[in-house]
Amino acid sequence: MTQNIQADILTIGDEILIGQIVDSNSAYISRALNRAGIRIRKKYSLGDSETAIREALNEAIGKVSLLIFTGGLGPTKDDITKITLNNYFGGKLVKNEKVYTMLHDFFTLAGREFSEANQGQALVPDVCAILPNTRGTAPGMVFEKNGTVVISLPGVPYEMEGLMEDEVMPFVEKRFQLPPVLHKTILTQGLPESVLMERIKDWENALDSRVKLAYLPSPGLVRLRLTVIENFEGAENYLNQKAAELHPILPDRIYGYDTDTMEEVVMRLLQKNKATVSFAESCTGGYLAHRLTSIPGSSKVFNGSVVTYGYDAKSKILGASKEVLEKEGAVSETIVIQMSEGVKKLYRSEYAISTSGIAGPDGGTPDKPVGTVWIAVSGPGGTRAKKFRFMGNRTRNIQMTFMTGFNLLRLMLEEE
Amino acid sequence: MTQNIQADILTIGDEILIGQIVDSNSAYISRALNRAGIRIRKKYSLGDSETAIREALNEAIGKVSLLIFTGGLGPTKDDITKITLNNYFGGKLVKNEKVYTMLHDFFTLAGREFSEANQGQALVPDVCAILPNTRGTAPGMVFEKNGTVVISLPGVPYEMEGLMEDEVMPFVEKRFQLPPVLHKTILTQGLPESVLMERIKDWENALDSRVKLAYLPSPGLVRLRLTVIENFEGAENYLNQKAAELHPILPDRIYGYDTDTMEEVVMRLLQKNKATVSFAESCTGGYLAHRLTSIPGSSKVFNGSVVTYGYDAKSKILGASKEVLEKEGAVSETIVIQMSEGVKKLYRSEYAISTSGIAGPDGGTPDKPVGTVWIAVSGPGGTRAKKFRFMGNRTRNIQMTFMTGFNLLRLMLEEE
Repeated sequence: MTQNIQADILTIGDEILIGQIVDSNSAYISRALNRAGIRIRKKYSLGDSETAIREALNEAIGKVSLLIFTGGLGPTKDDITKITLNNYFGGKLVKNEKVYTMLHDFFTLAGREFSEANQGQALVPDVCAILPNTRGTAPGMVFEKNGTVVISLPGVPYEMEGLMEDEVMPFVEKRFQLPPVLHKTILTQGLPESVLMERIKDWENALDSRVKLAYLPSPGLVRLRLTVIENFEGAENYLNQKAAELHPILPDRIYGYDTDTMEEVVMRLLQKNKATVSFAESCTGGYLAHRLTSIPGSSKVFNGSVVTYGYDAKSKILGASKEVLEKEGAVSETIVIQMSEGVKKLYRSEYAISTSGIAGPDGGTPDKPVGTVWIAVSGPGGTRAKKFRFMGNRTRNIQMTFMTGFNLLRLMLEEE
Repeated sequence: MTQNIQADILTIGDEILIGQIVDSNSAYISRALNRAGIRIRKKYSLGDSETAIREALNEAIGKVSLLIFTGGLGPTKDDITKITLNNYFGGKLVKNEKVYTMLHDFFTLAGREFSEANQGQALVPDVCAILPNTRGTAPGMVFEKNGTVVISLPGVPYEMEGLMEDEVMPFVEKRFQLPPVLHKTILTQGLPESVLMERIKDWENALDSRVKLAYLPSPGLVRLRLTVIENFEGAENYLNQKAAELHPILPDRIYGYDTDTMEEVVMRLLQKNKATVSFAESCTGGYLAHRLTSIPGSSKVFNGSVVTYGYDAKSKILGASKEVLEKEGAVSETIVIQMSEGVKKLYRSEYAISTSGIAGPDGGTPDKPVGTVWIAVSGPGGTRAKKFRFMGNRTRNIQMTFMTGFNLLRLMLEEE
């Protein structure tokens, strides 16, 4: 028998409450729990205060099966989570030999002093199980009370992620009998939410009532997420079938599913075609190269690229025409084509993307307002260029140019 | 008389609970409220469910002065916030002529159909004040009950940010008498939290008891945040004085204060020196260029850069020695110096940074393990190169290389 497991996620830290950092930990933890079939009841953030932590524990214990929280475990004075938990669960702090040895090795390997403050990280409550942290100094802790498992993790994302993967998920999967959660997410590029909604209206209205659809917009893309809210036989096949039905309704727009990213999809297609790509970036300033090279193994499909801001660089390095630059400006069809073909030749790549536009906030003219972007894509069959008008701020216009350019390349790669 | 105003921030959306998107909205809202002197009691996220929203309203109303929440205002079926609020506050939905006209103009300008679903965005509860949204279709709404102001905003970050800046903050500042909140954040580069703590131990122990210190680590940097938790005369001067005292304790490490970013600091120094910079990026794959060009106006200090992954590109475009590449590999002192000097010459820049390393997860050897990175910085006075060993995953190693390289450039610029 599977259980219906609910969890709360709590992130602790004044820096989250004052907005100094964005809480990405709780998104990571939700994804991991959700994949395993655990429903999140709520996520919340509280300050570094004993009262706040105690209230949160009172609120969760006995009500959810699992409370995971991060933060406040560092070696410094402002970190009060461990001592608060120890008091709450009525334990005392004792030196844990295993943790001490790990810490000792960790500091030796990094060539850093194993200071008194860091030795203090080996003191742990005697009323919890310890989850070893191979990426940092604060171990994870597992407490239990009135049917609620309480897990405390460090707030440094890199450490938290290691602990979630190596320790927490295996523990949770062993501890609870978990039901499958069925999601299917269809990733679309280039249509705003409201346009998309009109296009797929009939498809949406015909959905089984036990399946829920959500529209999740980000710059340049909208995720369409189908969730089975009440399980039925054949539900998984049903989701796949509905996803397949969308293809003819949204030609050229669907680039992937679920956790795919645009850069991964494009990288896979390049690998399949045994081809490489280069970029000549003006308004995107290196963002295309950054997104592709963030994927491990991208060196197989990427020799290099250039970022050319000035006219000089565009003509000297990429061979763009000085005359056209002077007459038509860099944000023009001729130049973006010359940039794309120039960088393709420079790196002897099979494919290339170039971008030239006005990301903003300055530089717009009545003729070429902020958000005007020319994108060219070159391949073995030639070059295509297209003008776009994005409606965002600088960051958003750069992101939308990336998504649009990569989708154009994807379409070209799929034709080959 | 100023008031002590507390606020809750709520983000609504199943996509946040399942971790499909990271909630950056609540960080933005906290920052804005915090700057205005409003203390955040808690932040939380709930699913798209009427029950959840009602519970949240019950929990906040009468307890905090302000509840701001985002999400669930789109034109699609899964968006239930407006109808839930309308029912909760006992209103009815009526067509708002001003919103209707704005929507009509918005769609006309974008050349998109003003569909029935989008016309529905002009239906608003008759028991709230409307905040016009110039960046999208869903207006903000202001309700009030038992001394609590409830503000509902769209979940699309770009739209939410516009509404916060143009409407919510002016409204909030007029509505409440707000006290000043004193923070001073000192930004340090290159020292891990525990090392930093040892170094500033004496300084920290001597802090006034009415001032609290927090350590906020991110990849490659640690923010030291001083907060006045109990106001006193001269508190602001005190914070500035304590910040100044840190300089001799942490030479070369402090690159800025408060909301400064490393790329802004470096850009200001380049502008001051009337100089430009270029990058020759291998392991960082365009990330340095991306970070600098994300700042409006960066074109004044940036002509361009190259991303060279392969040996061929390094030698052909940057003039790196083929012999050395074959003998010592790309991750070597000679090559990183040649890359930096090569790109400086190529773009006729006064300064350059180059990176060559093993970002991971593959490509490490016993001799050059994952995380090994050579960085060179060139300027009018010559080139300096240094080897680092970062201990992160791919993303983190790239970020740390950016922070480290830019800090080296900053130090060189400050010497001039």
